Amino acid sequence: MIVVFTGNGKGKTTACLGQMIRALGQGKRAAMFQFIKGPWISGEHKFVDLLSSSLKKNFLIYRGGKGFVGILGDKLPFRVHQRAALLTLKKVQQAIQSKKWDLVVLDEVNVAVSLKLLKARDVLRVISQASPQKVIILSGRNAPLSFIRRADLVTEMKEIKHPYQKGKKAQVGFEF
Amino acid sequence: MIVVFTGNGKGKTTACLGQMIRALGQGKRAAMFQFIKGPWISGEHKFVDLLSSSLKKNFLIYRGGKGFVGILGDKLPFRVHQRAALLTLKKVQQAIQSKKWDLVVLDEVNVAVSLKLLKARDVLRVISQASPQKVIILSGRNAPLSFIRRADLVTEMKEIKHPYQKGKKAQVGFEF
Repeated sequence: MIVVFTGNGKGKTTACLGQMIRALGQGKRAAMFQFIKGPWISGEHKFVDLLSSSLKKNFLIYRGGKGFVGILGDKLPFRVHQRAALLTLKKVQQAIQSKKWDLVVLDEVNVAVSLKLLKARDVLRVISQASPQKVIILSGRNAPLSFIRRADLVTEMKEIKHPYQKGKKAQVGFEF
Repeated sequence: MIVVFTGNGKGKTTACLGQMIRALGQGKRAAMFQFIKGPWISGEHKFVDLLSSSLKKNFLIYRGGKGFVGILGDKLPFRVHQRAALLTLKKVQQAIQSKKWDLVVLDEVNVAVSLKLLKARDVLRVISQASPQKVIILSGRNAPLSFIRRADLVTEMKEIKHPYQKGKKAQVGFEF
């Protein structure tokens, strides 16, 4: 099953994390591959460190990104971001081929495609190798039309109201 | 901060769970109070059982609901659902007054209000007792306008595509 979480609202990555927790509770294995996030440590990464070693085997967050691309002080050459995204897609491919994971999240992959770090068709080729029993989630704003067409389930997380609109800052344990 | 996750799409409860995980990772304490769900056990409840006792102290899911109301074979008198919702709101009030929790999720409370199990103003009165540093999430479709007005952050999870549309069944570890 292919799932897309897209839209400009808050809740996409956290919905992926929630799906992972639910899978973990049902004795399944869940892995997240992050295409944009990576350099900084969020609550979800610290959470993994808190898990017992037996749970850790079934719950992976791979931080493959190099951070924001072309905004918020990013000074990395575009090709560095591109290389990181390709490497992360390679990791996804290995994870799918290993058949170890019941749920595989490609976090912010929609953004990586819309920024032209990756081609949509390369992502589709990789995820098409997963058996239909597995759940694959493609998250991030600006999901390409080909992902939406291909997906079984699509939710648009739509921003109705956000404290940034009032100039508030990101909050530890909530935004990251 | 008051957050609303609403809309008819998948990802509301899982986004709440993801926020709880993120908070937990940052050393904070998160509690979810479920207003509709309750009688059956989902992956998230089994997940709690897998946590170490030190993590369990900081992560609570209270199953306060009596299940679907008036649909899908529900034969319980309406007042039984109403009493359960009021009791769950009482638990939320105690949780907020205890000041123990950094994040308090009222899962499906929007549905409970739209089904008239609870009054929106009673929910608003309870959550207004939380200090502004705390995060309160009100989840569920059909959020009342008074919640949206009151909230700092609102995301509408909008269904674009769902496998139910093709007659597929709920999947263990994904839908529950």
